[in-house]
Amino acid sequence: MRVLLTVAYDGTNYHGWQKQENAVTVQGELENALSKLLKENITVRGSSRTDTGVHAKAQRALFEMDLKIPLPALPRALNTFLPDDIVVNNAVEVSENFHPQYSVTDKTYTYKILNDEYPNPMLRNYTAFERRNLDVSKMDRAAAYLIGEYDFSSFCAAGSTALSKVRRIIFASVTKKENIITITLKGNGFLYNMVRIIAGTLVDVGLGKKLPEDIPKIINKKDRSLAGKTMEPNGLTLAEVNYED
Amino acid sequence: MRVLLTVAYDGTNYHGWQKQENAVTVQGELENALSKLLKENITVRGSSRTDTGVHAKAQRALFEMDLKIPLPALPRALNTFLPDDIVVNNAVEVSENFHPQYSVTDKTYTYKILNDEYPNPMLRNYTAFERRNLDVSKMDRAAAYLIGEYDFSSFCAAGSTALSKVRRIIFASVTKKENIITITLKGNGFLYNMVRIIAGTLVDVGLGKKLPEDIPKIINKKDRSLAGKTMEPNGLTLAEVNYED
Repeated sequence: MRVLLTVAYDGTNYHGWQKQENAVTVQGELENALSKLLKENITVRGSSRTDTGVHAKAQRALFEMDLKIPLPALPRALNTFLPDDIVVNNAVEVSENFHPQYSVTDKTYTYKILNDEYPNPMLRNYTAFERRNLDVSKMDRAAAYLIGEYDFSSFCAAGSTALSKVRRIIFASVTKKENIITITLKGNGFLYNMVRIIAGTLVDVGLGKKLPEDIPKIINKKDRSLAGKTMEPNGLTLAEVNYED
Repeated sequence: MRVLLTVAYDGTNYHGWQKQENAVTVQGELENALSKLLKENITVRGSSRTDTGVHAKAQRALFEMDLKIPLPALPRALNTFLPDDIVVNNAVEVSENFHPQYSVTDKTYTYKILNDEYPNPMLRNYTAFERRNLDVSKMDRAAAYLIGEYDFSSFCAAGSTALSKVRRIIFASVTKKENIITITLKGNGFLYNMVRIIAGTLVDVGLGKKLPEDIPKIINKKDRSLAGKTMEPNGLTLAEVNYED
């Protein structure tokens, strides 16, 4: 039986998603919990690697098991074996030809920035902080230039092993509610650190250091040094992953 | 010079506000930071004791110092000496007859409950969790019965040293936004665990175990055993403290 889980987590206390020797990771915790619950050795494959400190509302994780069990009760049973910063909230059976990465049609990430005079201690793990005033309407205009299919090499961290740097962004917006700015990006895939580098570039636009019209130029040059800094991980959340049906 | 600070904190990692030997507290951290910054031994007095795990948006803390310094720059300087789960966001000079507790006119607390099928890992430290459906309109009607000046003995934990259990509630409401229920209580003062016991009682109303009309009866009986359970601390936030001007 092949099962796809939806998993929410607070990434603050994890060395990212991906299993590692000698480091606590979300994948590792999830495999431990599944193996205990199902009493067989379970390996999971995630839809997306998230880095240390990055959160997920709806990561997806595939596993196979020998047993055939009713799935509606699985999440609650599994959560009793998980730490309280990881919550499984859905489990569905998938077919033999389903692939946790290649069957993805689109993913959505959000990046949140608290734009206020003082930090908020209760948001410190879930937002970046910027004291200087950010011009949200300029940031939103800049984000619109990201929509389309481009080689996003300028927004990719060194060390990426992606063969092609071409990705398609389907939706990009910057909104503000009270003092929290949310950057939302939906695309068919994202390069290593891409959302955090886009966030840093949009912050430069919000500060007036770059213009919205600079975005297409930065894309065209395929030069990482022209984009903004890689923002801290804690503002980033994997919000949604959709699959072909 | 007598200075009143406004302090926000995430209470998750503290043994409450009040200084203790061998336990990390918000008051203790604040006094350490002030003493380092001002290079004299500083003692602060808070407006309200908050328990382990309880948060504050706007706790108030008074201290006196020999120096006379310009106050607008104090919060940012002080924050560099504080851990990132405590943030001072205001400092004003107050007169000789100001008292951090007795000069209070009213305080507002909020109690938040996530009412959903699954917990949310990112809200786990800031909301209680209830899977069963809560009837918010009944809870709000029940809360309205709390408004007025009453002996709140039924909503006071054993071990309270308060001489009088009479308090005046000025505002009480229960609202829901998405899946988060917020109980808001404003009053001239609160007894030990009063907000958490009221929250437990309102949850009983939301579940249909008690009726809104039971609230005045529970108040009248002055019997703690008639009210609901003391809810966990993490849903509670000291939201506002106002003083006579």
